[in-house]
Amino acid sequence: MKSILLPQNEFERQEECGIIGIISKEKKEMAHDLYFGLFALQHRGQESAGIAVAYEPRKVYYYKKMGLVNEVFNEDKLAAFPDTNCGIGHVRYSTTGSSNVVNAQPVVFYGRWGRMAVAHNGNIINCDAIKSRLIKQGHIFQSSIDSEVIAALINLYSENSLEEGVKRACEELVGAYALVIMADNKLVAVRDPMALKPLCLGDKKGDILFASETCAIDSLDATVIRDLKPGEIVVVDENLQMHSSFISGVNRRSCIFEYVYLARSDSKIDGVNVYDARYECGKMLAQLFKIDADVVAGVPDSAIVSARGYSEVSGVPYIDALSKNRYIGRTFIQPSQSLRENSVKIKLNAIRGNIKNKRLILIDDSIVRGTTSRKIVQLLRDNGAKEVHMLIASPVVAFPCFFGVDMESKDKLIGGYKNEQEICKAIGADSLHYLPMDCLVKACGGKKEDFCTACFDGDYPIPIDKYNCGKFVLEI
Amino acid sequence: MKSILLPQNEFERQEECGIIGIISKEKKEMAHDLYFGLFALQHRGQESAGIAVAYEPRKVYYYKKMGLVNEVFNEDKLAAFPDTNCGIGHVRYSTTGSSNVVNAQPVVFYGRWGRMAVAHNGNIINCDAIKSRLIKQGHIFQSSIDSEVIAALINLYSENSLEEGVKRACEELVGAYALVIMADNKLVAVRDPMALKPLCLGDKKGDILFASETCAIDSLDATVIRDLKPGEIVVVDENLQMHSSFISGVNRRSCIFEYVYLARSDSKIDGVNVYDARYECGKMLAQLFKIDADVVAGVPDSAIVSARGYSEVSGVPYIDALSKNRYIGRTFIQPSQSLRENSVKIKLNAIRGNIKNKRLILIDDSIVRGTTSRKIVQLLRDNGAKEVHMLIASPVVAFPCFFGVDMESKDKLIGGYKNEQEICKAIGADSLHYLPMDCLVKACGGKKEDFCTACFDGDYPIPIDKYNCGKFVLEI
Amino acid sequence: MKSILLPQNEFERQEECGIIGIISKEKKEMAHDLYFGLFALQHRGQESAGIAVAYEPRKVYYYKKMGLVNEVFNEDKLAAFPDTNCGIGHVRYSTTGSSNVVNAQPVVFYGRWGRMAVAHNGNIINCDAIKSRLIKQGHIFQSSIDSEVIAALINLYSENSLEEGVKRACEELVGAYALVIMADNKLVAVRDPMALKPLCLGDKKGDILFASETCAIDSLDATVIRDLKPGEIVVVDENLQMHSSFISGVNRRSCIFEYVYLARSDSKIDGVNVYDARYECGKMLAQLFKIDADVVAGVPDSAIVSARGYSEVSGVPYIDALSKNRYIGRTFIQPSQSLRENSVKIKLNAIRGNIKNKRLILIDDSIVRGTTSRKIVQLLRDNGAKEVHMLIASPVVAFPCFFGVDMESKDKLIGGYKNEQEICKAIGADSLHYLPMDCLVKACGGKKEDFCTACFDGDYPIPIDKYNCGKFVLEI
Amino acid sequence: MKSILLPQNEFERQEECGIIGIISKEKKEMAHDLYFGLFALQHRGQESAGIAVAYEPRKVYYYKKMGLVNEVFNEDKLAAFPDTNCGIGHVRYSTTGSSNVVNAQPVVFYGRWGRMAVAHNGNIINCDAIKSRLIKQGHIFQSSIDSEVIAALINLYSENSLEEGVKRACEELVGAYALVIMADNKLVAVRDPMALKPLCLGDKKGDILFASETCAIDSLDATVIRDLKPGEIVVVDENLQMHSSFISGVNRRSCIFEYVYLARSDSKIDGVNVYDARYECGKMLAQLFKIDADVVAGVPDSAIVSARGYSEVSGVPYIDALSKNRYIGRTFIQPSQSLRENSVKIKLNAIRGNIKNKRLILIDDSIVRGTTSRKIVQLLRDNGAKEVHMLIASPVVAFPCFFGVDMESKDKLIGGYKNEQEICKAIGADSLHYLPMDCLVKACGGKKEDFCTACFDGDYPIPIDKYNCGKFVLEI
Repeated sequence: MKSILLPQNEFERQEECGIIGIISKEKKEMAHDLYFGLFALQHRGQESAGIAVAYEPRKVYYYKKMGLVNEVFNEDKLAAFPDTNCGIGHVRYSTTGSSNVVNAQPVVFYGRWGRMAVAHNGNIINCDAIKSRLIKQGHIFQSSIDSEVIAALINLYSENSLEEGVKRACEELVGAYALVIMADNKLVAVRDPMALKPLCLGDKKGDILFASETCAIDSLDATVIRDLKPGEIVVVDENLQMHSSFISGVNRRSCIFEYVYLARSDSKIDGVNVYDARYECGKMLAQLFKIDADVVAGVPDSAIVSARGYSEVSGVPYIDALSKNRYIGRTFIQPSQSLRENSVKIKLNAIRGNIKNKRLILIDDSIVRGTTSRKIVQLLRDNGAKEVHMLIASPVVAFPCFFGVDMESKDKLIGGYKNEQEICKAIGADSLHYLPMDCLVKACGGKKEDFCTACFDGDYPIPIDKYNCGKFVLEI
Repeated sequence: MKSILLPQNEFERQEECGIIGIISKEKKEMAHDLYFGLFALQHRGQESAGIAVAYEPRKVYYYKKMGLVNEVFNEDKLAAFPDTNCGIGHVRYSTTGSSNVVNAQPVVFYGRWGRMAVAHNGNIINCDAIKSRLIKQGHIFQSSIDSEVIAALINLYSENSLEEGVKRACEELVGAYALVIMADNKLVAVRDPMALKPLCLGDKKGDILFASETCAIDSLDATVIRDLKPGEIVVVDENLQMHSSFISGVNRRSCIFEYVYLARSDSKIDGVNVYDARYECGKMLAQLFKIDADVVAGVPDSAIVSARGYSEVSGVPYIDALSKNRYIGRTFIQPSQSLRENSVKIKLNAIRGNIKNKRLILIDDSIVRGTTSRKIVQLLRDNGAKEVHMLIASPVVAFPCFFGVDMESKDKLIGGYKNEQEICKAIGADSLHYLPMDCLVKACGGKKEDFCTACFDGDYPIPIDKYNCGKFVLEI
Repeated sequence: MKSILLPQNEFERQEECGIIGIISKEKKEMAHDLYFGLFALQHRGQESAGIAVAYEPRKVYYYKKMGLVNEVFNEDKLAAFPDTNCGIGHVRYSTTGSSNVVNAQPVVFYGRWGRMAVAHNGNIINCDAIKSRLIKQGHIFQSSIDSEVIAALINLYSENSLEEGVKRACEELVGAYALVIMADNKLVAVRDPMALKPLCLGDKKGDILFASETCAIDSLDATVIRDLKPGEIVVVDENLQMHSSFISGVNRRSCIFEYVYLARSDSKIDGVNVYDARYECGKMLAQLFKIDADVVAGVPDSAIVSARGYSEVSGVPYIDALSKNRYIGRTFIQPSQSLRENSVKIKLNAIRGNIKNKRLILIDDSIVRGTTSRKIVQLLRDNGAKEVHMLIASPVVAFPCFFGVDMESKDKLIGGYKNEQEICKAIGADSLHYLPMDCLVKACGGKKEDFCTACFDGDYPIPIDKYNCGKFVLEI
Repeated sequence: MKSILLPQNEFERQEECGIIGIISKEKKEMAHDLYFGLFALQHRGQESAGIAVAYEPRKVYYYKKMGLVNEVFNEDKLAAFPDTNCGIGHVRYSTTGSSNVVNAQPVVFYGRWGRMAVAHNGNIINCDAIKSRLIKQGHIFQSSIDSEVIAALINLYSENSLEEGVKRACEELVGAYALVIMADNKLVAVRDPMALKPLCLGDKKGDILFASETCAIDSLDATVIRDLKPGEIVVVDENLQMHSSFISGVNRRSCIFEYVYLARSDSKIDGVNVYDARYECGKMLAQLFKIDADVVAGVPDSAIVSARGYSEVSGVPYIDALSKNRYIGRTFIQPSQSLRENSVKIKLNAIRGNIKNKRLILIDDSIVRGTTSRKIVQLLRDNGAKEVHMLIASPVVAFPCFFGVDMESKDKLIGGYKNEQEICKAIGADSLHYLPMDCLVKACGGKKEDFCTACFDGDYPIPIDKYNCGKFVLEI
């Protein structure tokens, strides 16, 4: 209920999202395919979902609302969409208090090319500056999302052609962005020059698809062709002619946290299977940290893969230590006083038979605030684990992300103010080790300079202090 | 359900609406007062309702949704609004198929003065031209309502001051508009230079109010001060200092149809009680048309007053001939086949005892398409009326309105293609007479040149054929 | 929202309601007709609405929900009903705090005749006793409404035939009831032996209809045949054969308050037009109370008719003094503190031009608590009325109703503890007069002994103190 | 939408459900604890959820609705519940077309002990017979669920005491039932004499809890005490005095399918960890079926455990072959034509890197219709699996369940009309083997005669053909 009310957080940041776009030569039930594609991307955003289709030259039909994909759309809602040959879709991440349908995407607007629509994943760090500049020039904005600014900028510069508008706009944008744009009977996909956010290209019997992750292309029974390159702008016209051009200043710095946590394990990003990267992290942990323990387990869902990798190399038997409630979803009430201390039990339960009297290695993908880790360690001890050795399949998270991942500010990140030993004590583990950066980078199949690793080492690919997010950095 | 889906009618017209604005020196439950004010204006728009309040310098909290005022807001929704000293509200007219929350008002946006909000009643006939021009300059628009264009224009021109922006914008707007604008800790109210739409000023123990009709000011237990003058811009700052300036080209041409049908009978517009005007029309009908009948009645609700006036002058006893279902509301299903022919019975029932074997004079405020009149005449005859003489308390409606009243196009208006005699035959009355223009004008307390009477005589106060609505005019 | 939650008021009373039933030889869109019939009865109950149809032998499809008829049903909901030849419908009165969908009607159940359904208007004063007895016999009940008890009783006794069951059940019921029952391919209508509640029979091209008021039959373009007689049970079988039988102990005592306030003015009850009765009351007031005043007005809606009658006889000119907001509906928030004292202004506004400097006679149908009357008198004075003389078109309401009209208990009824003079002072009128009982009775076309006049004179047609409602009576 | 409409399936079966009950000496936020308990049982029923609390002697407050636990309840809904010392809750399984709020539980009713409430998991096979008998005795029923019949029966027989009523009622019930009953300031829990359905007892700092599975007790930070015994009736009074009695004819035949699929893997039923049972099944499969393959995988979620057991014994490396979309929920639209053939891809995606060019063993918990298995095998082959050998961690499902598990009728069960070889061919696997019954029984820690294994071998613990479900059996 309250989430429908409109908090007017002045310049709120846009969080992790998922996007999709499809163009076909034939008119078809496009909204259905977009629906299933978004459903595969649901893990990237549970706050709102939206679909927009171009149904005749320069006309767009759309529907967007707060909620999960299958809450927002039903048979009737989808049936109301016209058959069409082009459409885009979006899912948005849920952050407490910012639920607001005006911030839902795609952004649909009247512009130089009639009705246009934009869907965006990422975060533009000079967005406020651009917005302020455009406001000074007399523009108005009706939401607090970057996407509206991107839309305005694209339109502003597309006097001669949509392609030129997209390119000029992107040359100005600083930050992370994967975009799908629908206008002028074309579908345009853009990946920022650092390729911070994933975006891939697929083919379904001739139809062309773009999606944040390959799992969406797989789920539509289509074939993954390739990832977009850093700074690549792909324009597909109504005849499905595809043309690529590039934003200047290309310099790959892909988000390494996609492999650590964000992406689905069955997706492949820039040539590397997420599953394999996580498995490899586990193997490396085993090579580095030989712990005298009886069993190894992972925190579901993402760290289970790493725990298996650990087991393979170390020979420590893999077991399931924790069972996760499969219905943990978007909205949730506060537990009553009597449960608050043990709130993790609502989400996770111990598989007691597997851990009783065992010396346990527990692998997690990362530690953000540390409170959940502390509760998990306690839960395992309460269920008989003799020892709990924690291994983290990534380095210490110590710096905030300015590119679209909703992490805490530095003072909330336990790694921002405590060292490993202190964290170990805080979470109550018998020992704690993190995977070094070089290992993570290797597991993700690249070189350090290919990735944005800022959340771990503060090495932001953009001089953050030049922008208004700099104030956080100065606190480091 | 379907009304929530988004039909993309390219350039749909904005219909009759109601607006309200309040500013106080003290922070208070502003949303509650706006709620009750809008409730008093509900007859001006049943499609959507919205309230926006400024809660700290340059911040706005708002909520708007499809539905009646008491459907859109409940205690929880109102309680979520912060206490504040300024707010505006809007109700929008329901037209089939155009229900869309993005078209709900107030329009709230980020602009030169931080968060701003605009609510509008009227229709801007050069809106498409302005919109196209702004799009060419690189602006984007996210809805199909005039109000967004007005908002963009005000912002565009308010580089130096909000007041200048409002004035320059209004100088460009052609058409009908009553506006309330909230920005920069100020409340601004505007009435167009022709004063086509009503807008009045009230005082509630020092608080300043603006509302479309005096009935809203009455309902808030406040005192009506005066109507805004043609072209008047009233700016009220946070200290409740009020300052008036004027748009150039002032030339009063107030909508005479407000008196005929649109306004509530307990409102007073430009110094004339709507009730009195309607009563006077009835009296004049009696002076002009002496009909040998037993009783006189009015079609509820608006024409009952006129029927009483007729009765007073003619001596023909007034009776109630028709009872109206008080729950006729916003949404309504189509009657089943067996009822379609007699659908008027869902809305109106005959008071049989009053009309049986009677020669009846029936007064209505106007005839638009003629179909309802035909069914009413038949209903009365079916219930025993020996004769039904129809009197209309206004001239023949023969021309479409381009200033915000949702009337049919000329070919749908029965007065657009039939003469009085033909209409009489079409509706099945024994006789039919319309009130001449000079009488209506006199009843409304003015001179012909003070009013827009275009729907009756095609005398548009603006050269319609210069604008894209001209195509209709050419068909005349 | 909160109204959907379930308050478990142990033995709450059932309030005023409206019922309808239709049976046809042909299968048709029955739900549509029931919908429009209920819509005409909306004034009898705004809390919940429900429709049940028998769609094959012994099967019933139904839908019921909290809300107004056009909120509960939409095209989709109606389309989901199967075409059928028999159905019943119900609207329920809104009382604060008792909104609960389990208390909505019709009551649909599995019983001796397969699926059965009952809709009820009235109040059974020995309901608790019957319920307790049945519970002792092992029955269970899932709601707090009389209708479930009636349904259980009918079923209990219908071992041999539905008709016998209805008759035996009714012989036990003490109180007011109009029923429509659908079971065994039959439609049964029942009016209690005192004919306390109205119920009439109509014909629509061969189809047979029952409805609480004739206005529902009119709205369906059908013909009113007659009222059911006191204690009449009409059974209509699938061949539309109609058979009447009678409950013993017939003794007409019809509710006189239907004429005063409850019924729609265009309905006819037991041969008397409600409109005429109200008009006659006004005329009698004029004969009795000659007041030196300038104008006479009525409180909308029901007392306007009486004011006209007064005007005709007295020669005092009728004027409209008050305008009523047409959107006053089911749900409503509490006004903010600043408005609470003047809350009547939300509902009513003065037509200032008609009352300024006038000595005014104001007619209302009745005074229940007195608070609204006080506010109305004040409103009129605030708007310039020099004098306000109140006339009530019925006697002093001084006793609670136990037969289904939601009135206050005796200590809340201003007539229960103050005399005329005291009430006059309390409401701030210049004078106050009530219509004597003999006049009211005469206006309603009957003799005193034909009516239940208990709310006025405490002459309950049933020895109330024998039942558990007796405790109120003892307080008199 | 349509699910809210009421399909009148005459005697529909009740499906798998989850129940919970809590009683405390102190009044507390009972609804919150019930909420979280139900949330832990969500996997047992996604159609509707309900909570009822006893808030003063003989009064009950409840709320129930279609939807998932966190859709049905929010902070406001829970806050509306009074603090209390006793409450019960229920979640119901989703079956297409039977969504109907009148069928939601708990069933709350007025009976011999005031307000009473019952929640039920299971299926009463002589329910129709009892219902018919009670209807003949004059009872009525308002829903199509067994629970209402159970409630009526308990009430009928509880003339002397609630305990006696429960016992006598249970003596008559034939079938599976786990019950929690709230009445007369007591909380009663019942497990049927065959202990077909699980029900366990927990303690939370003195408060007493009953729940379908131990995972609910764990999630509430309480301690699992024990399972109820076959036929055990536990009555807990307001002083938390507990008293057990037994239904006659005790004969344990617990549902073995709880271990195979229904229960959460972190639950413990009748002393056996579900996780361990599944792991053991995998180990036994390895002992029985030595397959020359490269890797072994499980179909998520339930069969992954078995695949690990297989890996441990066989030495075939465990890998993840399939990734499951975590947002598969209650409602889902039909895929568009182009996706229908590959609809499994919406739910599952192949982890290509793990299976490419691999000879794969895939373990599933069971095969019901076979269509999903066929699609999974194809999906794996499409992603490069060279061979797919299917192992099922239970015997062939060949017989319908009459005790509350929503399985297909025999002609829909692929095991009902095809032998192993034919099924292997139908699903397109390279080989297919099922776990023999004796192994499954052993893995579940009991003897064959302790379990109901009817879905596998048709050995129903009750002579099914005596009841109206017999018609299915005869078709075998």
